[in-house]
Amino acid sequence: MKRSYGNNAVVGQSGGPTAAINASLAGVISASLESKYIGKLYGMANGIDGMLCERLYDLSELFTEKKDDIELLKHTPGAALGSCRFKLPSPDADPDFYENLFSLFEKYEIGYFFYIGGNDSMDTTAKVSKYAAEKGIDIKVVGVPKTVDNDLCGTDHTPGFGSAAKFVATVFAELRRDTAVYTQKCVTVVEVMGRDAGWLTASAVLAKTARSEGADLIYLPELPFSYEACFADIEKAWNDHPDVLIAISEGVRLADGTYLGADSTKTDKFGHVALSGAAKVLEEHVKERFGCKVRSVELNTPQRCGAHVGSLTDITESFGVGAFAVKCAEQGESGVMAGITRLSDEPYASGYASFDVSLIANQVKAVPRDYVNAEGNGITDAGIKYLRPLIKGECNIKYENGVPCHYIFKKI
Amino acid sequence: MKRSYGNNAVVGQSGGPTAAINASLAGVISASLESKYIGKLYGMANGIDGMLCERLYDLSELFTEKKDDIELLKHTPGAALGSCRFKLPSPDADPDFYENLFSLFEKYEIGYFFYIGGNDSMDTTAKVSKYAAEKGIDIKVVGVPKTVDNDLCGTDHTPGFGSAAKFVATVFAELRRDTAVYTQKCVTVVEVMGRDAGWLTASAVLAKTARSEGADLIYLPELPFSYEACFADIEKAWNDHPDVLIAISEGVRLADGTYLGADSTKTDKFGHVALSGAAKVLEEHVKERFGCKVRSVELNTPQRCGAHVGSLTDITESFGVGAFAVKCAEQGESGVMAGITRLSDEPYASGYASFDVSLIANQVKAVPRDYVNAEGNGITDAGIKYLRPLIKGECNIKYENGVPCHYIFKKI
Repeated sequence: MKRSYGNNAVVGQSGGPTAAINASLAGVISASLESKYIGKLYGMANGIDGMLCERLYDLSELFTEKKDDIELLKHTPGAALGSCRFKLPSPDADPDFYENLFSLFEKYEIGYFFYIGGNDSMDTTAKVSKYAAEKGIDIKVVGVPKTVDNDLCGTDHTPGFGSAAKFVATVFAELRRDTAVYTQKCVTVVEVMGRDAGWLTASAVLAKTARSEGADLIYLPELPFSYEACFADIEKAWNDHPDVLIAISEGVRLADGTYLGADSTKTDKFGHVALSGAAKVLEEHVKERFGCKVRSVELNTPQRCGAHVGSLTDITESFGVGAFAVKCAEQGESGVMAGITRLSDEPYASGYASFDVSLIANQVKAVPRDYVNAEGNGITDAGIKYLRPLIKGECNIKYENGVPCHYIFKKI
Repeated sequence: MKRSYGNNAVVGQSGGPTAAINASLAGVISASLESKYIGKLYGMANGIDGMLCERLYDLSELFTEKKDDIELLKHTPGAALGSCRFKLPSPDADPDFYENLFSLFEKYEIGYFFYIGGNDSMDTTAKVSKYAAEKGIDIKVVGVPKTVDNDLCGTDHTPGFGSAAKFVATVFAELRRDTAVYTQKCVTVVEVMGRDAGWLTASAVLAKTARSEGADLIYLPELPFSYEACFADIEKAWNDHPDVLIAISEGVRLADGTYLGADSTKTDKFGHVALSGAAKVLEEHVKERFGCKVRSVELNTPQRCGAHVGSLTDITESFGVGAFAVKCAEQGESGVMAGITRLSDEPYASGYASFDVSLIANQVKAVPRDYVNAEGNGITDAGIKYLRPLIKGECNIKYENGVPCHYIFKKI
């Protein structure tokens, strides 16, 4: 017989923010409020840190009968509860940590623990659930995935990816209109997030329409990068139009494994070696090789928080995954990650499923080779078939005074 | 008695693209199609270059009975007809140039010449109208302003500025949510376009809402920049919250007049001195001074082509200015720039007026001192009062397959 602390629940957010992590939080809140099993729902400020310091929001009180606030939270980028970067120790190495954590669970009568985040957060989920199981404590521990990188295993795709991909595709469609205005040969290099997996960079292909080329060349970190091959690709693209638009992943590496940025010999004003971005370095090489006008653009953090151009598919699913995590816990599952399964590509249909979190933590899902063309500079139809549904649909964003409205927690 | 070549019209676009220059084109097209005076409307491919090479679109044919295409064009960023960077010679220096140009006007029976662009384009407008007047040729020459920089004189504000400002304000609102997730002290420096005028950078203030701080510190090129003052500003901002968000104009200069970027001693891989962006250089200085986490973001070209987050006020007015230019020409005006007058701030109301283009060309309108606070690091209520109405209202953007639809001319 397991020991129970009570039927309250606690939810936290961890890792880098996205445009959809709050939609998952909204899903957890919404389903918890409707639950017959869950009592009070607490929100940890700054992830597991907030539990340890007892900085807890009473989400039941804040959101009961507040449908408008839940809707606003769904479309708020960032991590509304605050985030942390905290890798839990192993229970063998630091049993005191877990005793302290579980004494706080007991104090707040926690029976449900939901953790929204990326790879490290799934590691937290796995460790907390394992410890609870070993000690015979009845806490249902369920992870909710998020990452713009789309590199988590198990789930067909990650909440947050579709909105970031829609931002990337939209900006590429617009940049193509911007670059197309002159007749002189030019190259625009755009750097997209993704250190190890090229999913987000691959999404630049979605800017292509019947009349517009979108991105001409797309380079992912999954394949080795070669300057000479890239120069040949650029010359070939120039045969068709003067403005060549390139998507390059921040994590692109040369055949010897060095990052493009590491290839730079820059030092800053203070003598520090400054790692340049991949786009900046490629800009220098292309300028040197062709002497033409070259511009580099780094999409940077705006691409992971662009909720104003969020994908309706993504936000709806992110909310759904949060709500599904609550269902899993209600049905007695623990040590699992809620995720998305794809039922069909066209028309697109998806469902939710739970995955053993210990098989998911610390794994990386790369872009499969058949999603990239033979030349290694573009995305195949198979890749587009996978990516396209994830950016479809537009959210109804509430604006006030000309800027999007966000739900913001009061500081505690 | 003036000599007339005919009653056809020609329109061109010039200078850097914006999210609204096509809305002005749509206004010219729409009003020309409705005009009792104007015959055929031609569109010059790549500005005045297209006239000289006779690369002309028949816009009357393309857009008659095509209201949906006009609507699509209104929300297409870039310069749909193509642009050029071409400063016209003075008629005294190169009379052959003008004889050639006007012989082409005669060939195409041009009686109306509309030119949409920034400062250089108003210079073109001034020169062409002056030459026509001196030679007694009856061509109505009307300029239509555009620039994200908002630095043209005469008009209360420039078409294209409001949409770029809405992009800036939206991204700052989202970046604030992104930076607010951690509890450690950090600084995010965001570089905004505007070499000589800080209007666009000032718009970062519009991200401020009742619950969110928006940008903490805003530095414009109109005032000399000091690292020491900036460090003190950052320390003061940290008293309130750990994440300091800075907006800095690309054109910010030190007291001695040097650009922040010129202060850097970077050389690239090929030994070239590489001018860094202001944000990157400030990032290095702040890191060196405080040793905290610092990130720099350059908004770059996406800010000038972000039609998906276009300001309805801006797009409506940009269209209106284009249509008003046609009215001016119909009423016999020439050598003028169509522009916007502000009738009231709250509720906002505006009208259209024409300005003597020779008084406008080659002038720059700076942000007035009373729009900037005494400390030189923020925008006053007077500035907000001026800026706020320009970003209000959201456009109904048509999406297909998850990305915005654009109107794209077939290549000629």
